[in-house]
Amino acid sequence: MSGRRRLSAEEYIEGVRRGDRVALAQAITLIESRRDDHRRQAQAVLSALMPLTGKAMRVGVTGVPGVGKSTFIEALGCRLTAASRKVAVLTVDPSSAVTGGSILGDKTRMAKLGVDPLAYVRPSPNAGSLGGVAAATRETMLLCEAAGFDVILVETVGVGQSETIAAEMTDFFLALMLPGAGDELQGIKRGVLELADMIAVNKADGDNLVRARRAVRDYRNALRYMTPLSRHWKPPVAMCSALTDEGVDQVWRQIEEHRRVMVEAGEWQAKRRRQLGHWLWSLVDAGLKRALRHDPATAAAIKAAERELAAGDLAPSAGAQRILDAFLHK
Amino acid sequence: MSGRRRLSAEEYIEGVRRGDRVALAQAITLIESRRDDHRRQAQAVLSALMPLTGKAMRVGVTGVPGVGKSTFIEALGCRLTAASRKVAVLTVDPSSAVTGGSILGDKTRMAKLGVDPLAYVRPSPNAGSLGGVAAATRETMLLCEAAGFDVILVETVGVGQSETIAAEMTDFFLALMLPGAGDELQGIKRGVLELADMIAVNKADGDNLVRARRAVRDYRNALRYMTPLSRHWKPPVAMCSALTDEGVDQVWRQIEEHRRVMVEAGEWQAKRRRQLGHWLWSLVDAGLKRALRHDPATAAAIKAAERELAAGDLAPSAGAQRILDAFLHK
Repeated sequence: MSGRRRLSAEEYIEGVRRGDRVALAQAITLIESRRDDHRRQAQAVLSALMPLTGKAMRVGVTGVPGVGKSTFIEALGCRLTAASRKVAVLTVDPSSAVTGGSILGDKTRMAKLGVDPLAYVRPSPNAGSLGGVAAATRETMLLCEAAGFDVILVETVGVGQSETIAAEMTDFFLALMLPGAGDELQGIKRGVLELADMIAVNKADGDNLVRARRAVRDYRNALRYMTPLSRHWKPPVAMCSALTDEGVDQVWRQIEEHRRVMVEAGEWQAKRRRQLGHWLWSLVDAGLKRALRHDPATAAAIKAAERELAAGDLAPSAGAQRILDAFLHK
Repeated sequence: MSGRRRLSAEEYIEGVRRGDRVALAQAITLIESRRDDHRRQAQAVLSALMPLTGKAMRVGVTGVPGVGKSTFIEALGCRLTAASRKVAVLTVDPSSAVTGGSILGDKTRMAKLGVDPLAYVRPSPNAGSLGGVAAATRETMLLCEAAGFDVILVETVGVGQSETIAAEMTDFFLALMLPGAGDELQGIKRGVLELADMIAVNKADGDNLVRARRAVRDYRNALRYMTPLSRHWKPPVAMCSALTDEGVDQVWRQIEEHRRVMVEAGEWQAKRRRQLGHWLWSLVDAGLKRALRHDPATAAAIKAAERELAAGDLAPSAGAQRILDAFLHK
């Protein structure tokens, strides 16, 4: 925000509400700020915009580097904007929390979508911690919804807890996979198959077709070992090629079908409510943790407890009690 | 503890140290108590006994009801006591937290082991919350180690978070599976395959043998989709029959081999250290959450935030801030 005139809460609110791109970008910068006064202003802005949020389709997309996420998102995004839908692309990239840089890079990856007037591609926030990245992405999603976007695509690079975070903020979680079988399939991130509402084997084109078909069969087999997240939805496994556009439409049709089925079963609304409560309490708990770990009066108790614990002279429960007593001034 | 003379911390400590069963049972009852004075005394007892802990093999055993966990643990336990090893059997049973009852029941399930002088079978604690059950089981494990037990078998019924908790407190996590394939394999708990250091298809006897072999093949196939927890250990998949004793020895040999490999790689010690630190901080964070949720000065802020959030008039971050401000008296 430095060097610029500070906007008032009303200016942010009105600008976002109008769908003004500059105001939206400024509001996102505000919610990413870690300054205490910025945070409180951001909370006021968001609270005022809350009634305008919640109407978009929220779709998480994950996959290892090289799977073609950007190309896929560009292909899907352009089809949606061609149908007059407004599409925002956000990212959860834990590398930006660790290094200040970003694995996913910026919107230059999506040459067409980046200049599409109906699309908004936002680089990953630099919000300090992974928890900060998650919070910033969730709030950016709300801002984009208030600005009138119909579809929010949340891209994640598949490192650390990023998939869980992306799945926890979206209605539908799509896992893109590489064609291949056997050894090439090894090393799939723990838990990704279990979070997915759909698996799409991307790059199913040309010489890859045979391997893609085998991968589809293998993933269907692997999914047999997992309890479905919902008894109303069995995650489909399909092939697509973002390069040739083959199958991209079908992926979107599955996303719409999922929404229809889930809304009808009441699960869609229930999931949104659950996510909102979870979000509130995860922020409370993160704030509590932060307060304790940064409390000068508690620092000595923490240091002593960790030292004695490592030396084998202190039970964990006794150490925890000491730290809590120091923090809560008992 | 009611109706009995209250022991002093020294009496608990000396009794457990001597391996006295009555004192051990009383100490476990003490650590399970939720009374504040009992908790503080339990912490003092545990801290004094800490130098005597940590030498046992800690083995988690999970599997759905009907897989034959009790029979397996009895078969394994009797083989170990026959080799003069002292075996304690503990449980993580979330149903005891919810209902006050227990799916796993008591030691009458293990008729032989329950009366074996070298074995100690402890029913699941009634410690209020799942977190309380987990804490009580971990501390019971320490007490048993201080009392001289060489092997701690931590049984879990496979409901809720119980596997994660059991895996987080043990060195080796064994998943028992039923023979069968196809539809019968469906519905395996999310995450269990990913936590397992070994999969043993139990009840591989008589008519089940063909299906057990197929299940072994299927699980080997499923494990190909998971990143191993350690690059030094590829979880083996084997068959056993607790009924005929076939394969039970081999399971134990894998547990010993795992320990050898992990100690050599330095991973065994690193895992114990990581678990200890995680344990401390999970107790701190649980205590913090409890303090906030039970703070009378915060209750009104929580109620208002949840109401406004549900009405769509409040951003989660603003609600969290209000709750935190109320609790931290800002």
